[in-house]
Amino acid sequence: MLEIIEKKKFGQELTREEIAFFAQAAAEKSVPDYQLSALLMAIRLNGMTDQETTDLTLAMRDSGDIADLSGIPGIKVDKHSTGGVGDTTTLVLAPLVAACGAPVAKMSGRGLGHTGGTLDKLESIPGLSVALPVEDFIRQVKEIGVAVVGQTGHLAPADKTLYALRDVTSTVDSLPLIVSSILSKKLAAGSDAIVLDVKTGSGAIMHTLEDSLKLAQNMVRVGELAGKPIVALVSGMDQPLGTHVGNALEVKEAIDILAGRAGGDLLEVSLTLGGYMLHLAGKAETPEAGQAMMKQAIDSGAGLEKLKQMIAAQGGDPSVCDDVNRLPQAQVIRPVTCGVSGWVSKMNTMALGLAAQAMGAGRMKVDDELDYSVGFVLQVRIGDRVEAGTPLCVLHARSEENADRAEAAIRAAITIGQEACGRVPNFYAVVTKDGIRRLGADA
Amino acid sequence: MLEIIEKKKFGQELTREEIAFFAQAAAEKSVPDYQLSALLMAIRLNGMTDQETTDLTLAMRDSGDIADLSGIPGIKVDKHSTGGVGDTTTLVLAPLVAACGAPVAKMSGRGLGHTGGTLDKLESIPGLSVALPVEDFIRQVKEIGVAVVGQTGHLAPADKTLYALRDVTSTVDSLPLIVSSILSKKLAAGSDAIVLDVKTGSGAIMHTLEDSLKLAQNMVRVGELAGKPIVALVSGMDQPLGTHVGNALEVKEAIDILAGRAGGDLLEVSLTLGGYMLHLAGKAETPEAGQAMMKQAIDSGAGLEKLKQMIAAQGGDPSVCDDVNRLPQAQVIRPVTCGVSGWVSKMNTMALGLAAQAMGAGRMKVDDELDYSVGFVLQVRIGDRVEAGTPLCVLHARSEENADRAEAAIRAAITIGQEACGRVPNFYAVVTKDGIRRLGADA
Repeated sequence: MLEIIEKKKFGQELTREEIAFFAQAAAEKSVPDYQLSALLMAIRLNGMTDQETTDLTLAMRDSGDIADLSGIPGIKVDKHSTGGVGDTTTLVLAPLVAACGAPVAKMSGRGLGHTGGTLDKLESIPGLSVALPVEDFIRQVKEIGVAVVGQTGHLAPADKTLYALRDVTSTVDSLPLIVSSILSKKLAAGSDAIVLDVKTGSGAIMHTLEDSLKLAQNMVRVGELAGKPIVALVSGMDQPLGTHVGNALEVKEAIDILAGRAGGDLLEVSLTLGGYMLHLAGKAETPEAGQAMMKQAIDSGAGLEKLKQMIAAQGGDPSVCDDVNRLPQAQVIRPVTCGVSGWVSKMNTMALGLAAQAMGAGRMKVDDELDYSVGFVLQVRIGDRVEAGTPLCVLHARSEENADRAEAAIRAAITIGQEACGRVPNFYAVVTKDGIRRLGADA
Repeated sequence: MLEIIEKKKFGQELTREEIAFFAQAAAEKSVPDYQLSALLMAIRLNGMTDQETTDLTLAMRDSGDIADLSGIPGIKVDKHSTGGVGDTTTLVLAPLVAACGAPVAKMSGRGLGHTGGTLDKLESIPGLSVALPVEDFIRQVKEIGVAVVGQTGHLAPADKTLYALRDVTSTVDSLPLIVSSILSKKLAAGSDAIVLDVKTGSGAIMHTLEDSLKLAQNMVRVGELAGKPIVALVSGMDQPLGTHVGNALEVKEAIDILAGRAGGDLLEVSLTLGGYMLHLAGKAETPEAGQAMMKQAIDSGAGLEKLKQMIAAQGGDPSVCDDVNRLPQAQVIRPVTCGVSGWVSKMNTMALGLAAQAMGAGRMKVDDELDYSVGFVLQVRIGDRVEAGTPLCVLHARSEENADRAEAAIRAAITIGQEACGRVPNFYAVVTKDGIRRLGADA
């Protein structure tokens, strides 16, 4: 282990064997944490080559179970987002992609810090379970084409050890460590291809476009070396993606979109990501053709029907799709109005996510219980003209006191400027093995 | 702690308060090792400014007891060597400097890896103790002017924690960490000024002259900022300094030199270092004048007499100074002869030190018992002409088998070339607050 640390300290390339050794040691906790953390810092400061990052990704994947999805016919395309606020794309695109004929066997995660988690959102639907045995998971996808569940089996235990250490040693922001952490889990989840949504902006893991592009390129290259096609979209997180932030509220927005009652940026991004999924799954000639298929599935109601089937199959109450008021409702619902006139020029997305977390939509400690009903619905987007008295958002809180605190935080997070400003794009670029294609406006 | 790691990760300068926080935390073990090791790696890779290194040195000094030598009249000058092989300067210069009127209140260390330790050498003298209570230590210096003992009190506990971690996280070779480790202990030992012997070459902590000069400059600057005058000499460790390697053998060489029977590089280096000590202590106008005083103390026998006094005061048998055969004697004494004719062109000093360690002169594990009698006496220096059959050294071993192994290691460590080559200098430079003075030949 000491030799491995020493090599990386001198900026040398580690061999596949050396990387396999420390990944396995991390999984088994057979080397002391202080050696792993010294190595993580050396990796953070001296970097890794694409080959090293690939070797680390595969070694971490191989440190535990690998889901076997071969029982499901067809090309299984997974989707992963680096995490955002009001980002409910999975709940929109999973039923739509399945309705268009591509199997969606998805393992999702829980909320982390200011970002929401698909599992938490799904659990706001009365009765629904995300803890399916692997046989039931696979049977459900075979039968109805879609399942969204928590991790089954013991996937990538090396990542578990390293992720916990990174969090307390200031080594989270390392490109090769981010890439290997995300991709090791995604590859262990057994899909054939992956569409990545790399967020950029104030609420994202990468704050600048340049860093987000680097991360996207890295992931695509590692996917290439690992033999799994990856397409990475770089999308904006300068404001929450959907208008709804909070677990049941986000489910409601997804249902509204699938029912054809709502649109906006969340729909746009879901269609784009889903279009690539259908294309990679061999169900659409082009990503654009995939988008058109999904729009049809909204118009025909096939998408909403698929969501109902999924909810029912996982033990939930599908009638929420017909009456969104059956979702958990907050005690206090009231607007936050704008104090001055002007233009919405900036949102601190992370602060908005933290405000929702503090309201009870996210966990402050690992074992906190969530309040599924709470959160807020934004009434404005960046670029909007607002007058004094215009509502900025509608709060859904568990108490007046709770609402007061959230109101102060949300006001502080939204900047009203005195000059008109433009809208912000949803997508900046798409990265494939053929390179970067910059997107001038929404893709 | 996380913020401190993060700052250093980004290459930012830490404040005195931040440095004091983690030094104290290291001393008290109140932060986890994995955070300390991540910080050590960040320091190793991103460095520290002189001010940070000084703050760290002082914080580590202040993490435990500070020896109070104020009861001893006069300016107390300490000497420290970064460690070498056959480096017995303390045993030569301590009695000489004391005989010339400057108090020598010295805390020394034990052997580490391939390098010998003054305490181990002294303990090869029958009866001698290096574990003196601090009152006895101070009384002895007041009465006879010299004492060489082990650390008294709980000096620089922060260094103890960090040193142990550095050893297992590949962060030993960090200039600010080396400087703060050495100087925190030296400053805690309570002297008024310090003469440093920074070794360079194959047997030294720094292998290149450039790195050794950097280390010397760093130490001098930190001493300046800490308010303690430091003079650093950069001396060669391309071959063992003395001809004798091994505990009792090195005591013998020191006695031979003090008795005027031996000379060579060990004498040269001891006089140079001691000259600076006498100069800093205010007992000699110039370092050169100090050297002249010490030569007189050899000629008059005052130096040897002082060593006798010290040995007696510490419970040892002073008659070893009159009859070196009273020191521990090895069972097997036999020469290693040269196989080919040529010139001694290179010595691997570290390998020679490790050979002595393997013979029993040093510890392989912390609790190994030493064999004081073993080691070897080199018969050649770099640049010497040798013929086949010329003795390279005389082994002092505990068994024939032990001698066989040492013989093979020593042969491999000494290169006999086919072209004449020059001698290597003892000194390369002297570094003071006024800058570097390069020394063309021996100082």
